[in-house]
Amino acid sequence: MNSTETKNELSRREMLITGGKIAAGAAIASMAVLSAVKKSEAYENSGAAVFKYVKLDPQEVGRITYENYFKRWCTSSVIAGFAENLKKKGAAGWNDFPIDAYRWAHGGFAGWGALCGTLPGAGVVIGLVTKDTDVAEAMTNDLAFYYSYTDLPSFTPAKVLKAPIKHMTMSGTPICHISVGKWMRAEGVGFLTNERQERCARVAANVAIEAAGMLNEYHDTGSYKPKHKPLFNVIANGITSQNNCSDCHGQNPPSPRETYESLEK
Amino acid sequence: MNSTETKNELSRREMLITGGKIAAGAAIASMAVLSAVKKSEAYENSGAAVFKYVKLDPQEVGRITYENYFKRWCTSSVIAGFAENLKKKGAAGWNDFPIDAYRWAHGGFAGWGALCGTLPGAGVVIGLVTKDTDVAEAMTNDLAFYYSYTDLPSFTPAKVLKAPIKHMTMSGTPICHISVGKWMRAEGVGFLTNERQERCARVAANVAIEAAGMLNEYHDTGSYKPKHKPLFNVIANGITSQNNCSDCHGQNPPSPRETYESLEK
Repeated sequence: MNSTETKNELSRREMLITGGKIAAGAAIASMAVLSAVKKSEAYENSGAAVFKYVKLDPQEVGRITYENYFKRWCTSSVIAGFAENLKKKGAAGWNDFPIDAYRWAHGGFAGWGALCGTLPGAGVVIGLVTKDTDVAEAMTNDLAFYYSYTDLPSFTPAKVLKAPIKHMTMSGTPICHISVGKWMRAEGVGFLTNERQERCARVAANVAIEAAGMLNEYHDTGSYKPKHKPLFNVIANGITSQNNCSDCHGQNPPSPRETYESLEK
Repeated sequence: MNSTETKNELSRREMLITGGKIAAGAAIASMAVLSAVKKSEAYENSGAAVFKYVKLDPQEVGRITYENYFKRWCTSSVIAGFAENLKKKGAAGWNDFPIDAYRWAHGGFAGWGALCGTLPGAGVVIGLVTKDTDVAEAMTNDLAFYYSYTDLPSFTPAKVLKAPIKHMTMSGTPICHISVGKWMRAEGVGFLTNERQERCARVAANVAIEAAGMLNEYHDTGSYKPKHKPLFNVIANGITSQNNCSDCHGQNPPSPRETYESLEK
């Protein structure tokens, strides 16, 4: 399944959910979310005055990210993929960027397996170079969809640095532990292996390439067209969430109604 | 249960796990982790040359964090708690810090419910002001333990800004969705309520206060004494992980042996 098919399948699923049993609740929640978002104004981000973005070759961003992974791990390798290329092109703000100041986000926060560290790595760059928080929100939301519903890693390095690997897996979630665990099971290897390091390095490259495509669009057009609706998960499920409910909740996840009803009181 | 008791209880649990059934595997994994860490050198972090930390009053950091939550959400409110205080004290680097450039990390990454956004908020500040990546790793690891095994929120604002709330809950995890979901169930409220916003604002204050204590120790002594062993979860479980295995896996979580055995090949 390629990336486009995945996104189409997901869109069909979104429509089924939105058009189905929780439509009424979703409508109520949607209004409440919009109201909450409105109250929480989108900020002009002062970072964009300092950190400039120039158009980059996504494959080159991916290559540098892949090569940096083995000494810097997931988060900082994605940042390095951008920072080193932006520095080479003379973009303001990147000459002495503290790439390793964000290393703690590796392995889902210091190895706690929560959010895959490649995503906040891309988020740091996206947040610093985009002018308002709504654009960064849309890009990171789309990046989470890409990460969760694409077979990864599809990036193939020109020169394999650690070990050849055979499998791609779809995580269904941006959670490090589940994502890497599904891949380890498919590949039949443990976490502390060259193969697993190779896989995470390639996933980091994929995320960096996807983010570079988004930032190039923003550079060229001055805006970004979201592929998915920001805060969709909150609207559909009535809580910050993913769409893999049964992974943890089994066949009887708590009904979004529980929370929508509390809104109607 | 207060915070000290929680930590003691956890320490006993750590000893039970380490001393028990997976001791042999853990020893092998421990060597492999240390070897992997050694290969991945700790970096001198260039950020610390730019972003200075001066000793702050943790309660004041908490107050500013709490007040900022309602317009900036979790991640940026913790950053604001530090940035606004450091700016006021004239610490280098914080005068025009792009606080909202990190807002995308709210709600577990753009609302995906993964890593609670208060933790990367504190991580950004910790990463920028500490001189090497091992110190930031130790602090963020301890912060994840604090967040997961403390009844929160214990912060009580001098002036309640949204709504009075009754409950504290222990999340057992740094995952946003599980953490806020457990609290919502205890309090009997939905996500899009004033009560839930109040809770997350207070949790953000707690995390900021805890991080301020760590950074004050680092400021005073030039070092930081870890409360918990960094990468403990990876060593104990053979994968980036938390210690709430049965929350998702039920009574039969995959054995760490699966991954340790692949190391012994």
